[in-house]
Amino acid sequence: MKSFSPLFERLEKSLQTLPGVGPRSAQRMALSLLQRKPEQARELASALHDALTTLRECVQCRVLSETERCQICADPARQTGTLLVVENPSQLLAFERAGLHDGRYFVLKGLVSPIDGLGPDDVGIPALIDACEQVQEVILALSSSVEGEATAQFIVSRLQGTRVTRLARGVPMGSDIESLDPNTLGLAMGARESLGS
Amino acid sequence: MKSFSPLFERLEKSLQTLPGVGPRSAQRMALSLLQRKPEQARELASALHDALTTLRECVQCRVLSETERCQICADPARQTGTLLVVENPSQLLAFERAGLHDGRYFVLKGLVSPIDGLGPDDVGIPALIDACEQVQEVILALSSSVEGEATAQFIVSRLQGTRVTRLARGVPMGSDIESLDPNTLGLAMGARESLGS
Repeated sequence: MKSFSPLFERLEKSLQTLPGVGPRSAQRMALSLLQRKPEQARELASALHDALTTLRECVQCRVLSETERCQICADPARQTGTLLVVENPSQLLAFERAGLHDGRYFVLKGLVSPIDGLGPDDVGIPALIDACEQVQEVILALSSSVEGEATAQFIVSRLQGTRVTRLARGVPMGSDIESLDPNTLGLAMGARESLGS
Repeated sequence: MKSFSPLFERLEKSLQTLPGVGPRSAQRMALSLLQRKPEQARELASALHDALTTLRECVQCRVLSETERCQICADPARQTGTLLVVENPSQLLAFERAGLHDGRYFVLKGLVSPIDGLGPDDVGIPALIDACEQVQEVILALSSSVEGEATAQFIVSRLQGTRVTRLARGVPMGSDIESLDPNTLGLAMGARESLGS
């Protein structure tokens, strides 16, 4: 196959580095940007450039931010007594979408995983411990994997004297009991709630 | 919902102008670009910028090109006797993927459509007529819609003396006869081929 332009091919290749974008979508995107939406294409190039040159880490929660403290940490309306610990910025945004937390966050850089060579320092636990000083409750929203458990254990051991909680585990809303895995079923049985005497 | 950064939101919004990209995919793309693939993000911004500032139309076939004539038109190995007329660059690339044409192309800017205010001049038919001067056969690969038919008729009327053909219509390979529309079935019946006496 021959392409009509090396520059066009370069743009197609580059678009394929986006998650979930294959060769056909990349071609459709490149043509759409160049032929139908040059204004939006210019804005995309500029937004990408500005984000790359300006965004760094919020000094408080470690999420991406163009200011020293991110919009959430800088918001005086957020209460400071509760800190929600997540693994990545997507999880922070999931909580914000659901409107479930009016406190602050701390974003780890993944989970402690000795196999991958990631120790407590690599994922940012020392900074988390510092951030917990004035906090009444630390809520852990970590994956229920071996790495998630290990990370939670390590955080608890370093935060003696502070209330540390984690999200409840059990049957998700609307889910089919027969298709749940045995571990989740076991957890849900163990933590069953009383409905009447 | 609150975001942590206005610049991050701007990048998300901008990614949503890509075809097939909704809010969730845009968020995933933005985080992937900024956190995991900053090198590829820089390359995407640069490829987009270079494409926008450099690409114009090939003077011969009207496809996007950074040179006066595109890679295909400039290729001395392509034969010049046959010109394949397509509606857009995606169709050109479909023929190149299939390796079905070793001649040159002409890319119309869509189809003649009086309802949308698109006349023969708007879609580039005068330039096509000029490009057909030294050509033995003009193959039309246009949609079988009312606009496609009107465009084909107009081209034929302007190319008296030149051989003009169009792609055969009929039953596609591997398709289910019972699910074909009546028009296609009618065309396939009318153009049926003899297999024996």
